[in-house]
Amino acid sequence: MSQTLIEIGQRAKMAEPQMRIMNTAKKNEALLKIASELEKQYEFILGENAEDIRTAEENHMKPGLIDRLMLTKERIFAMAEGLRQISALEDPIGEISEMKRRPNGLLIGQQRVPLGVIGIIYESRPNVTADAFGLCFKTGNVVILKGGSDAICSNKAIVKIIRDTLYKCQVTEDAIQLIESTDRETTSRFMKMNEYVDVLIPRGGAGLIKAVVMNSTIPVIETGTGNCHIYVDESADIKMAADIIFNAKTQRIGVCNACESLVVHENIKEALLPAMQERLKEKNVELRGDEAVCNILPDAKAATEEDWGTEYLDYILSIKTVSSVDEAIAHINRYNTGHSEAIITNNYENAQRFLNEIDAAAVYVNASTRFTDGFEFGFGAEIGISTQKLHARGPMGLHALTSAKYIIYGNGQVRS
Amino acid sequence: MSQTLIEIGQRAKMAEPQMRIMNTAKKNEALLKIASELEKQYEFILGENAEDIRTAEENHMKPGLIDRLMLTKERIFAMAEGLRQISALEDPIGEISEMKRRPNGLLIGQQRVPLGVIGIIYESRPNVTADAFGLCFKTGNVVILKGGSDAICSNKAIVKIIRDTLYKCQVTEDAIQLIESTDRETTSRFMKMNEYVDVLIPRGGAGLIKAVVMNSTIPVIETGTGNCHIYVDESADIKMAADIIFNAKTQRIGVCNACESLVVHENIKEALLPAMQERLKEKNVELRGDEAVCNILPDAKAATEEDWGTEYLDYILSIKTVSSVDEAIAHINRYNTGHSEAIITNNYENAQRFLNEIDAAAVYVNASTRFTDGFEFGFGAEIGISTQKLHARGPMGLHALTSAKYIIYGNGQVRS
Repeated sequence: MSQTLIEIGQRAKMAEPQMRIMNTAKKNEALLKIASELEKQYEFILGENAEDIRTAEENHMKPGLIDRLMLTKERIFAMAEGLRQISALEDPIGEISEMKRRPNGLLIGQQRVPLGVIGIIYESRPNVTADAFGLCFKTGNVVILKGGSDAICSNKAIVKIIRDTLYKCQVTEDAIQLIESTDRETTSRFMKMNEYVDVLIPRGGAGLIKAVVMNSTIPVIETGTGNCHIYVDESADIKMAADIIFNAKTQRIGVCNACESLVVHENIKEALLPAMQERLKEKNVELRGDEAVCNILPDAKAATEEDWGTEYLDYILSIKTVSSVDEAIAHINRYNTGHSEAIITNNYENAQRFLNEIDAAAVYVNASTRFTDGFEFGFGAEIGISTQKLHARGPMGLHALTSAKYIIYGNGQVRS
Repeated sequence: MSQTLIEIGQRAKMAEPQMRIMNTAKKNEALLKIASELEKQYEFILGENAEDIRTAEENHMKPGLIDRLMLTKERIFAMAEGLRQISALEDPIGEISEMKRRPNGLLIGQQRVPLGVIGIIYESRPNVTADAFGLCFKTGNVVILKGGSDAICSNKAIVKIIRDTLYKCQVTEDAIQLIESTDRETTSRFMKMNEYVDVLIPRGGAGLIKAVVMNSTIPVIETGTGNCHIYVDESADIKMAADIIFNAKTQRIGVCNACESLVVHENIKEALLPAMQERLKEKNVELRGDEAVCNILPDAKAATEEDWGTEYLDYILSIKTVSSVDEAIAHINRYNTGHSEAIITNNYENAQRFLNEIDAAAVYVNASTRFTDGFEFGFGAEIGISTQKLHARGPMGLHALTSAKYIIYGNGQVRS
């Protein structure tokens, strides 16, 4: 392991005790000051970001990726605003729950504590730098960031401002560290620093996440892709179904909670499909269906097996007909990615069965899958949406960045 | 990947939907019938176990390990009793919590669900087979067991009885599967079956756990070793301290929550150490101390740096003197394994600081570390004691074998 990485790990561990016991007022004060400093120094950040953009253009980066990399005054102010929102959230650290007196007199409870040192591996979105720091800092965690190489100048600038401001607030600067070397080997070594890092959170596309899952020996919280389905049951209200499908498919196409696939009960297909097609035409959504669908919608293309498993992130929707709620549940549990699934129905029994039997982070009755989001669920900013079952599932707010320890008050108890 | 392993994975996945929705009465009925069958067929199990013992003796296995491998009628009946106890525990599956109405009318809550498919990798203790099955089954999980090669005949016998009984109860037999091939390559491939297995739990010694953590690409719940400390503060009651130290060190030496190291405030060392030595003499505990300790206790050996980090699991205790609670906390946080730590004090402020600042799964004031245990904490049988911070920390009962999903009741909501 390179000396630099070990040093970074050691510094993180040294910062941990101060962060563990920092009170909420102190954390909020630092977050607000950092927000102001990011705004004050926006021209410095823009200058460094311009370096990244210049290099990206020289390397013929695609316009979409350049847009993701580019900062503007507005985007920097939005970052600052994000930190202010985090400062306004309730601090989960220190909360004690489930406190119970045992028969032997021991008083046992669980106290919420930071995870410790969190590693974040992400792509070239400089806004993640401030955002991830804010969530980790508010929960008393130390963070080590490994951002995409294309954003290195922007990330260094943002981290410099954060560290300088922490110093002014008399908080350990090592609450945030950036791994500056951007080669793959460093990333690979970082993913095996079990001695120094308690958890890794990859933020980015499916490729990045898979690489971290397959290579890390540190526990990983997997944020994931969403092949989200809407099942329209035979008893559904046609207008409600069309509205929800339109919203879930087109309100924002590039997000993980957008609907990618529709499952339709055969008894409602004639009534639903033309009405829905009419609605989706507004956004030129391409439809890919099975034979029954293509018979009703002549414009639809024939779906292949591959379509059922594809997260398009585009104006495309696959459509499958089924003859029962059982078949719908089996199809969805086979092809979904464990993100968000919805049933549109007016049948009580089918609604309950769908809720109980679908295996996903969020299961909806009569609502759009687009609600799977920290703000919509009522716990504010999130570090990502977990599609794994361990530790955290669904939108991960501050609580997902914490652990608990048992605290036990005794008066001399020994075990017999 | 070998065909057999893939088949086992596929069968587990096929069993998952039935297990996900199985009601508690059905699960309890099966557990009780299996308990009876294990008792009824104890002679069959003993016969198969005798095969394992014969092979072990031929291979000159150490007596301690043979004892661990050996079953008796009593041990088989204890296994059955364990299953009855699990059947009596409350079933966490299906419980809905945190249900809240959002401003837009959506009703959002969290429903407790099984993890899915759990892999257990363990050593040659055949009792783990029934025990791990019971906990996984009660929580609606499918389990794939990979036991130690030395116990293969015993494990096959126990799994056969469980599967036969499940069949009679009209429950999918594949709720439990045993990987029968015992070579290392199979284990290694098993640890990379992310497509089929949701979580791996290694049960055994430090070597086994480390191997799983370093090689698995599936999320692992790490159960761990315990280098547990007791810190005797200057205001401690001497008799209480000696009683707790005696209990935590000697009540059972081979367990992870036994005390391995003592930290003593210098202002109490003269009063405490001779009294404590007197107490520990009864069990011939070897003491290894720093210079200050050796000056007071001439029989004590000099401790080395290595002693501070060693989990003896033996009648040995290391002793370090410190000049403040800060030094005690720093020492413990440096050398502990995140298991169980205790302070003996009558000082309110120091008790609170110890509880807040020590980084471990269980932190005690004025009680023995030996209480870190599922039964003692009031939630019954446990699958292990987690020393990691993700998902579950401390004794892992039924709750640790579950996940949650968000369930959302709407009436046509779309996102704006």
